[in-house]
Amino acid sequence: MVELRDDERLDYLLAEKLRIIQSPSVFSFSLDAVLLARFAYLPIQKGRVIDLCSGNGVIPLLISNRTKANIIGVEIQERLYDMAVRSISYNHLENQINMIHGDIKEMPEKLGKGKFDVVTCNPPYFVTPPKSEKNINEHLAIARHEILCTLEDAIQVSSKLLRQGGKAAFVHRPGRLLDILMLMRKYRIEPKRLRFVYPRYGKEANTILVEGIKDGSKDLKVLPPLYIYKAENQYSEEVEEMLFGNAIEYDKKEG
Amino acid sequence: MVELRDDERLDYLLAEKLRIIQSPSVFSFSLDAVLLARFAYLPIQKGRVIDLCSGNGVIPLLISNRTKANIIGVEIQERLYDMAVRSISYNHLENQINMIHGDIKEMPEKLGKGKFDVVTCNPPYFVTPPKSEKNINEHLAIARHEILCTLEDAIQVSSKLLRQGGKAAFVHRPGRLLDILMLMRKYRIEPKRLRFVYPRYGKEANTILVEGIKDGSKDLKVLPPLYIYKAENQYSEEVEEMLFGNAIEYDKKEG
Repeated sequence: MVELRDDERLDYLLAEKLRIIQSPSVFSFSLDAVLLARFAYLPIQKGRVIDLCSGNGVIPLLISNRTKANIIGVEIQERLYDMAVRSISYNHLENQINMIHGDIKEMPEKLGKGKFDVVTCNPPYFVTPPKSEKNINEHLAIARHEILCTLEDAIQVSSKLLRQGGKAAFVHRPGRLLDILMLMRKYRIEPKRLRFVYPRYGKEANTILVEGIKDGSKDLKVLPPLYIYKAENQYSEEVEEMLFGNAIEYDKKEG
Repeated sequence: MVELRDDERLDYLLAEKLRIIQSPSVFSFSLDAVLLARFAYLPIQKGRVIDLCSGNGVIPLLISNRTKANIIGVEIQERLYDMAVRSISYNHLENQINMIHGDIKEMPEKLGKGKFDVVTCNPPYFVTPPKSEKNINEHLAIARHEILCTLEDAIQVSSKLLRQGGKAAFVHRPGRLLDILMLMRKYRIEPKRLRFVYPRYGKEANTILVEGIKDGSKDLKVLPPLYIYKAENQYSEEVEEMLFGNAIEYDKKEG
């Protein structure tokens, strides 16, 4: 049914009853992708959604359950693009999700400016790749570091792709909060919703989720905190629901 | 012992065992001032601290319990300055706190540039005063709106007053988060600690606390959330402690 290469696995895609091809040595999706896929506004019935820096297609796959809109995923690494295409095929989502193998910077020209309602992007987080890591594994280095795609690239491209009033959602690290907010405003994606993710109660935030509106008015809301764990090795209810669906509610009813 | 004018009251200043002159029609301190006074870094033994837009002197009074440093408060409204002076005198803090009646924009020239270790400021929050309010009560309008002091004034002046490596702490509304962060960076006060204040669990933040370092490196930490209430009319433990001291701990031991 699906061809798996090297150390690839066909993993369950959590609450969405989908499966996804991953590989520990090439690319595995992170919790950040799951958080972003839930955080982003999506049109329910129709519209055009594009996910930049898609990796193995985790975000297009996850959001396909929340919208009937057409979804495009863009990935520059052929190896990852190929994993995404096979996962989409395995889940019979070829009619809704189209992967493009290419550089996000070429997409506004290729796909047209102002044509998208929603952009999502989980960009590489780190400015300078440590030489050791860069040399050891090119796939992981490109996915994690701003080698082929800087934060500014991601935001500038998002702005070009979005129609006026369209929304872009990003996930990043708190250390880059200023950069991401300033770049969003610079490229006319006014930040509107900001949510901080904390590993657990009493700890500093380790992830930020931010959504802006193309040419939106200045009016930023800071949403309630999102906690990942409520205790050692125990996810919070909110994350549990994201990852495993309504299992908890179900158990309650059964019990 | 202290002269009270018009509708002024001599209120208890909460956990600090101090008292403060307030007036419902002229100026009463807010919870934001209490939060800022606790949030700000302070040298314990010595140093120079300045509080801008001091109002009735609530922040200088509150922080006098956390530091032996010399504290200056600056207030442009004579009526409020006068309340602050009398409160300082009532609490016998004339040797530690000096109030200046004047415009914060004149302070760098008057007091010298780069001479302060810490600046605190709870600036007016609102950009445009509604005409009705402005006309009704000039004291409150000036304290609440950017009439005599804009956010940019406050941050620019803070930067001039701070020595290299000195710290400035501000409290503001989440809607101005981008403005405050961008202005801090513009005036070389690099944001380092950011804390969001939520009225209660599950609600959007309504206050931000931010501290930066003059010419500091880029490295922003987002601290754990601060909740004001844990239930209807019941403060969280953290705020209870700020407001009323260790009463809860004490009760626990007694019980």
